[in-house]
Amino acid sequence: MSSQLGQLFRISTFGESHGGGVGVVIDGCPPLIPLNESDIQKELDRRRPGQSEVTTPRNEADTCEILSGTFEGQTLGSPIAILVRNKDHRPEAYSEMAEKYRPSHADYTYDAKYGTRNWQGGGRSSARETIGRVAAAAIAKKVLKHLAPDLETLAWVKSIQEINADVNPLTITSKDIESNIVRTGDPQVVDTMITRIKDIRSQGNSIGGTIECVVRGCPTGIGEPVFDRLEADLAKAMLSLPATKGFEIGSGFSGTLLTGAEHNDHFYMEGAKVRTRTNHSGGVQGGISNGEPILFRIAFKPTATIMSSQPTISKDHQETELKGRGRHDACVLPRAVPMVEAMTNLTLCDHLLRHRALTGQ
Amino acid sequence: MSSQLGQLFRISTFGESHGGGVGVVIDGCPPLIPLNESDIQKELDRRRPGQSEVTTPRNEADTCEILSGTFEGQTLGSPIAILVRNKDHRPEAYSEMAEKYRPSHADYTYDAKYGTRNWQGGGRSSARETIGRVAAAAIAKKVLKHLAPDLETLAWVKSIQEINADVNPLTITSKDIESNIVRTGDPQVVDTMITRIKDIRSQGNSIGGTIECVVRGCPTGIGEPVFDRLEADLAKAMLSLPATKGFEIGSGFSGTLLTGAEHNDHFYMEGAKVRTRTNHSGGVQGGISNGEPILFRIAFKPTATIMSSQPTISKDHQETELKGRGRHDACVLPRAVPMVEAMTNLTLCDHLLRHRALTGQ
Amino acid sequence: MSSQLGQLFRISTFGESHGGGVGVVIDGCPPLIPLNESDIQKELDRRRPGQSEVTTPRNEADTCEILSGTFEGQTLGSPIAILVRNKDHRPEAYSEMAEKYRPSHADYTYDAKYGTRNWQGGGRSSARETIGRVAAAAIAKKVLKHLAPDLETLAWVKSIQEINADVNPLTITSKDIESNIVRTGDPQVVDTMITRIKDIRSQGNSIGGTIECVVRGCPTGIGEPVFDRLEADLAKAMLSLPATKGFEIGSGFSGTLLTGAEHNDHFYMEGAKVRTRTNHSGGVQGGISNGEPILFRIAFKPTATIMSSQPTISKDHQETELKGRGRHDACVLPRAVPMVEAMTNLTLCDHLLRHRALTGQ
Amino acid sequence: MSSQLGQLFRISTFGESHGGGVGVVIDGCPPLIPLNESDIQKELDRRRPGQSEVTTPRNEADTCEILSGTFEGQTLGSPIAILVRNKDHRPEAYSEMAEKYRPSHADYTYDAKYGTRNWQGGGRSSARETIGRVAAAAIAKKVLKHLAPDLETLAWVKSIQEINADVNPLTITSKDIESNIVRTGDPQVVDTMITRIKDIRSQGNSIGGTIECVVRGCPTGIGEPVFDRLEADLAKAMLSLPATKGFEIGSGFSGTLLTGAEHNDHFYMEGAKVRTRTNHSGGVQGGISNGEPILFRIAFKPTATIMSSQPTISKDHQETELKGRGRHDACVLPRAVPMVEAMTNLTLCDHLLRHRALTGQ
Repeated sequence: MSSQLGQLFRISTFGESHGGGVGVVIDGCPPLIPLNESDIQKELDRRRPGQSEVTTPRNEADTCEILSGTFEGQTLGSPIAILVRNKDHRPEAYSEMAEKYRPSHADYTYDAKYGTRNWQGGGRSSARETIGRVAAAAIAKKVLKHLAPDLETLAWVKSIQEINADVNPLTITSKDIESNIVRTGDPQVVDTMITRIKDIRSQGNSIGGTIECVVRGCPTGIGEPVFDRLEADLAKAMLSLPATKGFEIGSGFSGTLLTGAEHNDHFYMEGAKVRTRTNHSGGVQGGISNGEPILFRIAFKPTATIMSSQPTISKDHQETELKGRGRHDACVLPRAVPMVEAMTNLTLCDHLLRHRALTGQ
Repeated sequence: MSSQLGQLFRISTFGESHGGGVGVVIDGCPPLIPLNESDIQKELDRRRPGQSEVTTPRNEADTCEILSGTFEGQTLGSPIAILVRNKDHRPEAYSEMAEKYRPSHADYTYDAKYGTRNWQGGGRSSARETIGRVAAAAIAKKVLKHLAPDLETLAWVKSIQEINADVNPLTITSKDIESNIVRTGDPQVVDTMITRIKDIRSQGNSIGGTIECVVRGCPTGIGEPVFDRLEADLAKAMLSLPATKGFEIGSGFSGTLLTGAEHNDHFYMEGAKVRTRTNHSGGVQGGISNGEPILFRIAFKPTATIMSSQPTISKDHQETELKGRGRHDACVLPRAVPMVEAMTNLTLCDHLLRHRALTGQ
Repeated sequence: MSSQLGQLFRISTFGESHGGGVGVVIDGCPPLIPLNESDIQKELDRRRPGQSEVTTPRNEADTCEILSGTFEGQTLGSPIAILVRNKDHRPEAYSEMAEKYRPSHADYTYDAKYGTRNWQGGGRSSARETIGRVAAAAIAKKVLKHLAPDLETLAWVKSIQEINADVNPLTITSKDIESNIVRTGDPQVVDTMITRIKDIRSQGNSIGGTIECVVRGCPTGIGEPVFDRLEADLAKAMLSLPATKGFEIGSGFSGTLLTGAEHNDHFYMEGAKVRTRTNHSGGVQGGISNGEPILFRIAFKPTATIMSSQPTISKDHQETELKGRGRHDACVLPRAVPMVEAMTNLTLCDHLLRHRALTGQ
Repeated sequence: MSSQLGQLFRISTFGESHGGGVGVVIDGCPPLIPLNESDIQKELDRRRPGQSEVTTPRNEADTCEILSGTFEGQTLGSPIAILVRNKDHRPEAYSEMAEKYRPSHADYTYDAKYGTRNWQGGGRSSARETIGRVAAAAIAKKVLKHLAPDLETLAWVKSIQEINADVNPLTITSKDIESNIVRTGDPQVVDTMITRIKDIRSQGNSIGGTIECVVRGCPTGIGEPVFDRLEADLAKAMLSLPATKGFEIGSGFSGTLLTGAEHNDHFYMEGAKVRTRTNHSGGVQGGISNGEPILFRIAFKPTATIMSSQPTISKDHQETELKGRGRHDACVLPRAVPMVEAMTNLTLCDHLLRHRALTGQ
């Protein structure tokens, strides 16, 4: 059951990068939520390759079909199945992958675990697997619009290598982020980032960075104590994305340098609303949202596929070399932005429904 | 269902810091595992307050009782219930807490979520809640000994504020860690860390830091693709601990500065064993263990309870001040070391059983 | 995870008949529900042995203690742990059970499954295991009172062997049932049933029968399509009780003799309320409650423990004989009545919370 | 989450009778199991309408497509998605159903629960929903062949109304059952049953009956104590099928007439094998298989759709009449036989994997 997420808004993704298709079944979506394929297609288009000069030139059509769970433009309350057909079959382009393990990919560990592997395009470890997540999250977003109309989730590229964006999480807009192909929120670093990505790609190399995400307008009281703390479920959701190596919320790792007197967030009243003077907590205290913006960052390693030759081993455990081929992102960050938003919305939607079950609100 | 963890080795913790007691029920523990109360007590003693001059002087006896699930020194395969009675009832010492929200604690969010709260000693958000986890993990450790005899989990204090320990994760031993009361692995920084904690405590202030954890000898193939990646479940487990703000595995956040050519871990053969030259992956690729040491770090914020007066609000939303009282850790790190090991062993035990279900091994 | 039930109101029972104690942890109970130990004790007293001349003379005190999850007489929303200590330790009385398998008990299958077994008093297969269920259900009943004030669950002994009670499920009251020690709803058969049980007991033999249960006032729309149909979850809940061999709802097995024209329940309006003329459906259509009384019956086999000598095998697979000893119910039905009500209320409470999560109502 | 079943072999079905299609995603299927579409198609063909003169003349092609989870004729260990397209769109044939509630169908309860309903062909309550189950069970059957090669599941029509088949569960074969279009196991009653079904159909009426199912060769030790007893999970699985009203195992309801001395199954040795002289237990003791044949029966009510006019109410709660239209089974039993086998195999496959996780066997 590795491909299921959520307790009440439960998604089950399926599909290898090659084969019939990829998709998702969502069980537990409330009825009477307006939903059309265009709601989903819009989000899929943000994650697909080939959308700009800094992403892979592979052109995946990624056209979604809703197979079930809606009727006359609304959800029925029954499982919603979404299918995106695979189109770009070119197994021959990857045939070397059947014999050799790509460094820092999942080839070796899949074989070690299962004794088999769909080596075409990476199988289940392909970034294409995230299509099901993004599709499900498009629906989660519609449910959130219904349950918490003021809630807004926004992610942006915070850094690429050492190039750091200066962004105000309280004021940044979706338009700011989508205005540039790197999806960063700081106009000052856009060109530097684009240049860096192009340079690295021309070298056949790759780079990583960090993405920052804010949830504004989340109701107070969302999340759970103990194991299913909101930050714990967000951490899991983020670390489940390909290429992620770290997660921090609020003050994060740099907060370990402060003293308690510096770090504590003091409560005060802003009219009738409870606020805190600082937000080192990142909007979550004891696992539960406190009404302040939820703010966290995720580390993405440099893409594992590079175009230079690397030492590795073959399936029969002989040492050999392998050179990357095909079309890949030199930097996954711009396309990872909608994935981060997707995982955030899936997590929040599930927790809002859990809160409603427990408290009736 | 916020207090359950694990798919096959499922634990259900219970208990507030004040009331009848705290504990855990473990469902899914294999039969015929040798188990006595002393196995559990040993781990509880490592987490309890009052064990050294750098931890809180509160003396919690924390004596555990196995209520069910064992017979003649072995597990039965039925649920194992463990109870630790609460003893140190002093509600009057905390009565101000009934009326005022402590900054950066869960007081406000609990009231916001539930409309009620056991304000005595923090209720379910108390560090005392971790007793159930540590008790369950003591059993997980016994199961791991059976399923994967070579597996060893060790955690240590990696940093306190900017004081950083230099530790070799491949060679550090349990004895190294337990040889000093800070539970760091670097003898060079022990005194500096102790002095820092004492100084901060004498100021009525608090500090945080990071803990590093290694799993050596984990079999290859453990973990799952997609949502339940090993690193995702570890991230969730760690972020579910009180006071945590971040998690990173392998190269983590600093890995975002490298290029792919620098970051990729090249495979080679060490005799019959598949190895990687570097371990930026942190022992996990595509969510599945690759046989290299699993290595990760967790950020702990400074303890929220400090002895100086801080601005806050009351339950009826009036601005007021609150001064910390009672006996608390100025630095939670030394006592958090066994908690990190506990959450790691719980996560691994569950994944090893999942692997056995899927593959028969 | 054999000892957990419920998706949102999730209970985890624990405990063997001999050992520290038996009990339950409930995770997912809404906050602010009034709850005291006496609410639970009342239900436990209805299931305990020794309460009348037709039940086993064993006198189990079964005093419950709430260990967590309540504060000042209300639920907190955190896990509620309940413990009932074991008191009647007399392992010597049963020592033969360590070596020989009792016919139609779980002795052999437990050993076959686990390779071990707490042979004292039946271990986990003891009827004593139901204490945790009844305790949890006492809380479910309080939650139901809050969520669906008109809902009332009543069970009664419908038959003992061929002695059949004539009961009107629409009008029977709790007082009717508790007015006689057999807990049947028909005063005409009380004496016959009591005489039969006493006769059988005096012969060292045992008998079974059926229990009927009605849920009146259940809101319309409770339950789910497909796998978690209300009748499916009720069937599972009932068949999980010791000694049960069958379940039927509405027209049940006898409905298979009718034609569709006879069996269909025609809708009509009773004022503003949708009703059906007949109730062959048993209050559930397509897995979802339709507002009519939910009505079902459960078959209980004769108690396996009898006082005559029976052929069996020993643990080392030698043929031998075994004679029942100790104090047992010659007829489990009267004490099973509160267990049936308990399992019904647990099932309904979970489904009402699921309905609230999905629809907000 | 009403459309998920299983803890380790978890299936998620989707699809309304009208719309893009119906299907299932299976998460948790072990790798390296041989699997082709023909394995699934074979089982789908047994459940489809139009296969004989006693089933509905509707001709559903039900051609399945495996979208993911297999590679070169074997399972990968990743989710297996199966899709069967809907073809027979004729919404106009059913348009009256948009306004009126069919008696003893789920029309009213779906509207009451969700506030909406796909009224075309019954939506999710259509028998077409079982396609996903049968497809998933075809895979479960392949896994069972691998885990327990001697295990064989066979179901047959035991009775139609009062016409009862005399069948020996120990010797009946698949060939016996498939040799006649009613799928009963007793050649003596085949013609009577066929005649009865034809007569009833010609009257525009419908009938029900019982199905009996045996599992031969199930390993000892399968199942769990307490809530997930094998018989409890079988009861749930069976009662989740459309039109079911009862379940009994072993002696069932008639066992309530016996005394314990008559009912107890005495152990004896048959060579090295533990056996019982009788099998009133139905192959399960304390929730766990004892190696004897598992034997149970399920009651199916007469099909709700009949061709005569019946009183009912409309969506706006006006009393009205409704006459059945379209092509329906006058007796669902022959087509329910493969569904019963499917639910049995799904339940067993899940429990065998659970047993493997717990005990390594």
